[in-house]
Amino acid sequence: MREKVAVIGAGSWGSVLANILVMNGHQVHIWSRRKEQIEELNEKHTNHHYLPDFTYDKRLVASDRMDEVLTDATTVLLAVPTKAMRTVVADVAHFLNDKQLKPVIVHASKGLELGTHKRISEIIEEEVAQENRAGVVALSGPSHAEEVAKKDITLVTAAAVDLKDAKKVQHLFMNNYFRVYTNTDIIGVELGAAFKNIIALGAGALHGLGYGDDAKAALMTRGLAEIARLGIALGADPLTFIGLSGVGDLIVTCTSVHSRNWRAGDQLGQGEALSDVIQNMGMVIEGLSTTKAAYELAMQQKIDMPITTAIYQVLYEGKNIKQAISDLMQREGRSE
Amino acid sequence: MREKVAVIGAGSWGSVLANILVMNGHQVHIWSRRKEQIEELNEKHTNHHYLPDFTYDKRLVASDRMDEVLTDATTVLLAVPTKAMRTVVADVAHFLNDKQLKPVIVHASKGLELGTHKRISEIIEEEVAQENRAGVVALSGPSHAEEVAKKDITLVTAAAVDLKDAKKVQHLFMNNYFRVYTNTDIIGVELGAAFKNIIALGAGALHGLGYGDDAKAALMTRGLAEIARLGIALGADPLTFIGLSGVGDLIVTCTSVHSRNWRAGDQLGQGEALSDVIQNMGMVIEGLSTTKAAYELAMQQKIDMPITTAIYQVLYEGKNIKQAISDLMQREGRSE
Repeated sequence: MREKVAVIGAGSWGSVLANILVMNGHQVHIWSRRKEQIEELNEKHTNHHYLPDFTYDKRLVASDRMDEVLTDATTVLLAVPTKAMRTVVADVAHFLNDKQLKPVIVHASKGLELGTHKRISEIIEEEVAQENRAGVVALSGPSHAEEVAKKDITLVTAAAVDLKDAKKVQHLFMNNYFRVYTNTDIIGVELGAAFKNIIALGAGALHGLGYGDDAKAALMTRGLAEIARLGIALGADPLTFIGLSGVGDLIVTCTSVHSRNWRAGDQLGQGEALSDVIQNMGMVIEGLSTTKAAYELAMQQKIDMPITTAIYQVLYEGKNIKQAISDLMQREGRSE
Repeated sequence: MREKVAVIGAGSWGSVLANILVMNGHQVHIWSRRKEQIEELNEKHTNHHYLPDFTYDKRLVASDRMDEVLTDATTVLLAVPTKAMRTVVADVAHFLNDKQLKPVIVHASKGLELGTHKRISEIIEEEVAQENRAGVVALSGPSHAEEVAKKDITLVTAAAVDLKDAKKVQHLFMNNYFRVYTNTDIIGVELGAAFKNIIALGAGALHGLGYGDDAKAALMTRGLAEIARLGIALGADPLTFIGLSGVGDLIVTCTSVHSRNWRAGDQLGQGEALSDVIQNMGMVIEGLSTTKAAYELAMQQKIDMPITTAIYQVLYEGKNIKQAISDLMQREGRSE
């Protein structure tokens, strides 16, 4: 069934997902705040700042008018950085209420709200009135926008408390190269997606410091164990961490040159200053704030997270990165 | 405490582990059948066929006389290819009986016996009389000989039914770059080590066929799930598959250029014939026979293993690799 989908956020991931939906036969409007980006998308069908070599389907319509984009939407896809999420969702909620719409709300963002440590779906549930949402779904998994744009095969997970919402999103996005599984553990899916960026920073730092593949695999394994420990304490299903949104996303984020968090860690490991790394990246590095959130949550929950703690100390307490990683990797051997 | 250790097998891994033990202060004798390799190790302290750029500690003594190597050994480390294991272990057993020795027997091999599908520790228990062994330990984890040789930090697992045996091996090998954890699930550790080579063949094939990092991460995730399913049916603890010998070894084997199984898959994906791949490698590709073993075990146990089945069909039934991988990656999306 042809649907009217509103995509909020026109970065790499939001715009590529919007393009999939257009190619799948849906009517898709995408919103961005930036007028020049909207013009480029509508006129040249490109988005050069995010995906320099990609041309979008001509049927994708971009607009900086959120009310227009949301008109008659039966699905809303949110793809904005975590730190902008609450403000943007509040705007979306306002228009949904105005227009008396009740779409399924999907998000494709990976992070936790700074300060509150809330998951994206919690932010959505707080900001959008119950009568203006038919379900909240997290779309997550090992996926680089660059590869999906090239139609490389990608497997992701659509997670919702109610399986029917996840299935709706599965059907909306599924095609022969973008394969969507369903999952009902939205807590685990969102936490895995957020926390894995911490481990990616660490894996990048190892590389920047000159460590090899053995050390990287060990860090990823011990990292998976510690983010699962915290996730389980916060209500996640342990099995989710060995699924696509857990170990799958961890693998792709820690081993692909496309990952911003890995690259940020790599640059830190090579001795660059954090402020320079942030400036040079030009896109949001979600792992920086997620490290703070996870560190504070681990303290509250009394969960031992040595990797997260080491990265927190480097990012926020000025600990020497070489010393931090060396201390971490040489902790006494013990029972797994 | 200084021990007398006999290392049986002088390939990359056996020789590097022997070198660690020498550097840790133990008296180590290493056995190989090949006289010219023995001479090279004793005279030049090199092993150029396996580790071209590495020089061994001068205190490492090599010999082609197994009885000499085993004299007074309190620990025996077996590091020979799986297909040679039973014959070699029978020889070791003979001398241990002659000399009335009762060492701890450690093995560092990753595979299952062809035909019987037995784990290495089962072969050891069958061939070595109970009065000639103080315990059987599997040493496993994400470890490339090339990286350990360079003293890159590596974390591995020593697994034994009796924790005290695992701890003995932990203390024997542990140093500031080779970190040894303990585990009592030897079944899970041995099965994870063996089965991960199947997934590495698949990950290599994906690369050879031109797929990207998303597809690789998805295959590894789904692969981990299917090898864990089979492992659990065979008596393994599910948690072992998310430890160093499970996901850790899977990661390093599927993402490092050092992995023979990955390279073999890569060459197959690029269209090379299996016979050429085997001939060009010049070292044993354990994943080939492990795929057959796992395929047959999965049939017996009625476990669904789509990745293993696809690779089996390519290796043993002449299925076109491009078609096999495409079929596999495009299976219908469903619940994780």
